Amino acid sequence: MANLTFDSYGKTRVRLTQVLRQGDRHEVVELSAKILFRGKFETSYTKADNSVVLPTDTIKNTVYVVARKNPIQSIEQFCRDLASHFLGSVPHLESVHIEIQQSPWNRINNHGSAFVSGGIERRVATLIATREKEHLESGIHGLEILKTAKSAFSDYLVDEFTTIPPTRDRLFGTVMDADWSYRDGVADYNAAHADIRDVLLSTFADHVSESVQHTLFDMAKAALSAAPLIKEIHLVMPNKHRLLMDLSKFKLSNPNQIFVPTDEPSGYIEARVTAD
Amino acid sequence: MANLTFDSYGKTRVRLTQVLRQGDRHEVVELSAKILFRGKFETSYTKADNSVVLPTDTIKNTVYVVARKNPIQSIEQFCRDLASHFLGSVPHLESVHIEIQQSPWNRINNHGSAFVSGGIERRVATLIATREKEHLESGIHGLEILKTAKSAFSDYLVDEFTTIPPTRDRLFGTVMDADWSYRDGVADYNAAHADIRDVLLSTFADHVSESVQHTLFDMAKAALSAAPLIKEIHLVMPNKHRLLMDLSKFKLSNPNQIFVPTDEPSGYIEARVTAD
Amino acid sequence: MANLTFDSYGKTRVRLTQVLRQGDRHEVVELSAKILFRGKFETSYTKADNSVVLPTDTIKNTVYVVARKNPIQSIEQFCRDLASHFLGSVPHLESVHIEIQQSPWNRINNHGSAFVSGGIERRVATLIATREKEHLESGIHGLEILKTAKSAFSDYLVDEFTTIPPTRDRLFGTVMDADWSYRDGVADYNAAHADIRDVLLSTFADHVSESVQHTLFDMAKAALSAAPLIKEIHLVMPNKHRLLMDLSKFKLSNPNQIFVPTDEPSGYIEARVTAD
Amino acid sequence: MANLTFDSYGKTRVRLTQVLRQGDRHEVVELSAKILFRGKFETSYTKADNSVVLPTDTIKNTVYVVARKNPIQSIEQFCRDLASHFLGSVPHLESVHIEIQQSPWNRINNHGSAFVSGGIERRVATLIATREKEHLESGIHGLEILKTAKSAFSDYLVDEFTTIPPTRDRLFGTVMDADWSYRDGVADYNAAHADIRDVLLSTFADHVSESVQHTLFDMAKAALSAAPLIKEIHLVMPNKHRLLMDLSKFKLSNPNQIFVPTDEPSGYIEARVTAD
Repeated sequence: MANLTFDSYGKTRVRLTQVLRQGDRHEVVELSAKILFRGKFETSYTKADNSVVLPTDTIKNTVYVVARKNPIQSIEQFCRDLASHFLGSVPHLESVHIEIQQSPWNRINNHGSAFVSGGIERRVATLIATREKEHLESGIHGLEILKTAKSAFSDYLVDEFTTIPPTRDRLFGTVMDADWSYRDGVADYNAAHADIRDVLLSTFADHVSESVQHTLFDMAKAALSAAPLIKEIHLVMPNKHRLLMDLSKFKLSNPNQIFVPTDEPSGYIEARVTAD
Repeated sequence: MANLTFDSYGKTRVRLTQVLRQGDRHEVVELSAKILFRGKFETSYTKADNSVVLPTDTIKNTVYVVARKNPIQSIEQFCRDLASHFLGSVPHLESVHIEIQQSPWNRINNHGSAFVSGGIERRVATLIATREKEHLESGIHGLEILKTAKSAFSDYLVDEFTTIPPTRDRLFGTVMDADWSYRDGVADYNAAHADIRDVLLSTFADHVSESVQHTLFDMAKAALSAAPLIKEIHLVMPNKHRLLMDLSKFKLSNPNQIFVPTDEPSGYIEARVTAD
Repeated sequence: MANLTFDSYGKTRVRLTQVLRQGDRHEVVELSAKILFRGKFETSYTKADNSVVLPTDTIKNTVYVVARKNPIQSIEQFCRDLASHFLGSVPHLESVHIEIQQSPWNRINNHGSAFVSGGIERRVATLIATREKEHLESGIHGLEILKTAKSAFSDYLVDEFTTIPPTRDRLFGTVMDADWSYRDGVADYNAAHADIRDVLLSTFADHVSESVQHTLFDMAKAALSAAPLIKEIHLVMPNKHRLLMDLSKFKLSNPNQIFVPTDEPSGYIEARVTAD
Repeated sequence: MANLTFDSYGKTRVRLTQVLRQGDRHEVVELSAKILFRGKFETSYTKADNSVVLPTDTIKNTVYVVARKNPIQSIEQFCRDLASHFLGSVPHLESVHIEIQQSPWNRINNHGSAFVSGGIERRVATLIATREKEHLESGIHGLEILKTAKSAFSDYLVDEFTTIPPTRDRLFGTVMDADWSYRDGVADYNAAHADIRDVLLSTFADHVSESVQHTLFDMAKAALSAAPLIKEIHLVMPNKHRLLMDLSKFKLSNPNQIFVPTDEPSGYIEARVTAD
């Protein structure tokens, strides 16, 4: 016999651009949403019973309707508006899982209605909500950063297959993903997000690093200290290696000047840090 | 205070090509590996203590060494060889998480040493191993399939935002991810994998589908029936919509002949099904 | 003063799926089209005069209308149907540039209406047409192939920066783009395309290669010989290097068994070969 | 008979990071280079004669050597240094084609040695050089921009397949590629590049647009006026459509507030504009 032990369905990559206008001053929000349902949907799998299935096309339509009725002020609030709608309208829905990724747009010369992309970085909010409770996380994905000083890696464990030389001066590049959860009482998610991004960046910049692990932990610690409303933060920092080019075979020195950036293989470091 | 509550590190995207030769008959295995360590590594984060850190560069080197010492017969076995090595050589490593993705190469006209790519499909194995136990899954990721008959979607739940029309004849395309776990006693992982892939494909082809959910469940059920060694299977099948083009405004009929394929938004359906 | 010396506009990434049915036997064509116009469109640039601009949205609509009126038998014929329509309906259009990329779908077990993707390979047709003449090319893009025998690279030019060792036995992998033009009189573009693909593949497989250049030229020559209707062929074959892993530092030999596949940097070899 | 009528070879995706230091102030240049050779290389194709082939691995090595000997001040100068080297050292090389793409890194809070990525935008230089002459172009690729006001599209040519409604207020988004050539006498390529980028952005922001064509031409004109050292500029501006969502079926108005951003299909507009 075959038993259905888990199921989930919904819509992904629902894209939306919102323009709000105050005279000549326009605000742009551009995002992609993923919305998954869990609940009493088993018979659609096991008995071909579609009567329990709200079409994913309807889920998509609803994203636009909810945005029109409740203009998006932050993606965190938009997650909640969507969850509230779906939990209110689909009785057999037990939990809704929403992930929203917002693309950054920066003003061109402080122009009121013209913008240049902020790149591959995404502001992220994820919400898991039932009728009784919710778990909300905010984050930044794809933040590509590089430091060219104050980064070392030495005194590590050596085994028979270790060939990497220790160094007191290397390049340290990563594409960071950060996700955190707040305590209750955040008044302005946009401001809080900007503050945490600033702390992460400035800590990365100033840190005297003995390893990616070392810097990651101190970035997490700084975020928790600077933003007392955060209760937990999870950081993923792949090590996007830039290899010192060996020019000795061409009778040239290379005083940490010429490197080969690589995409693969890639180190991978992650941790979760909690305020107590 | 900041407490480290979770940490993990390792190497991703370690790529390897292995050629084994029996006279003019060559066998190619091409893969990408991800290897993550969990254990007593906290001090590298909290005290800049690298003495606990085996460099990720060493992890990478070891992949090649282990492959050389134990020629790869299946990626499942290779996961185990790698896990066994790392658990044996790093005392404070508690669990190792390995994911291997193999790229398919098909022979050109049954030639002994020339191959054409099997596309974006990947054969996958994931292993989580401690010194006491292991959890192994095998799978297929990125299997792009399409059926042009025997697919309907009607009699679904309708709310105020539902605009999609019911249909008894639509295109059904997906890019499937399947992962399953075996009972003990699999003698030949390569043969088992090929069998399960065949059952999934033929069930998809023949199924009289009322929904993606319906087909997904029957594919899972067929895999469990046909391969008694599987104890559980997890399927993810996004609905890669092909929209019927409305040609009525040009005074043309469209008897299910001309569609617009789309990448986004995309339906998303998943389930886990267990043999009992 | 600023003079407009070249201009072109149109629509790209117009995607279409066509299903033709003969009882239970369905034929699927899936493609993406790019259509560019050149002609007397200057005033739209220089005088904001849109009266000369057929909207790109209309160009997109027309792709579906033309496909409905003239079911697609080959992408070459579809290019011509589209060109004929646009040149017939837009008087100030002087030349139309059409590129169509078709995604391969293979039947699952010879099933009538279920298909599995043929991967990233694309069948391609490009047409440049005016009211007086046309230039048509057919091709294959993204054909990923690998040979593990009969490939050498030695006796090359050596300068002071040459460090690569000569080899009589290396892996040879590429992702080939081929484009060719036919003489008049091709009766069946689908059959001709399949024939040329076969010749290219079998020549690659059997060739005793001294370099990518050497194999590329002999593949082109074989295509011209085997398919007398081709008058010219252009091949691009990047060298997707698989580097022999140096295991000597671990006291292991590596008899051409373990390689590191790489995406970058990549060799690049191209040539055009003409029948006389 | 088969005649070789064109051939070219070289190396692509050669990646390099350069760090130059003045005390605590570091300058980072990160780039990817493509270098192709044309000349008397026919016998490598037709006679398996590798004696004319400088290995592409050597071309790659040389990129790093030339950078070490001549620190990179601008990618334009680096193109010339590379061309000069290769034309000087390979007698049968007739022309060398170099394309360099530089990734933008911005300082974190004006920090001396910490940087955040400038996104997918690339600064580009392309050089075609022989021993007698050169053609150099500079450019920007992948500049993603959006304006939410002063963009209309109306009064266009209408045919039987035109269904798009005219609008006096739409969103206008593009991912621009610009390439230009300078007159002789540019003293500082970095400053010139920054100036042209500024003019392109500010013209885009302020323009009262009747079409993409209209804005593209005025951007080109502005660049030629503001930077008298440019003699020609080529712009490609795909129209990345953001479609007004029709909410009327849900009894909601949509006063240009909620849009659906799309990647495909995409309008495509290009032109070359020359100063006289």
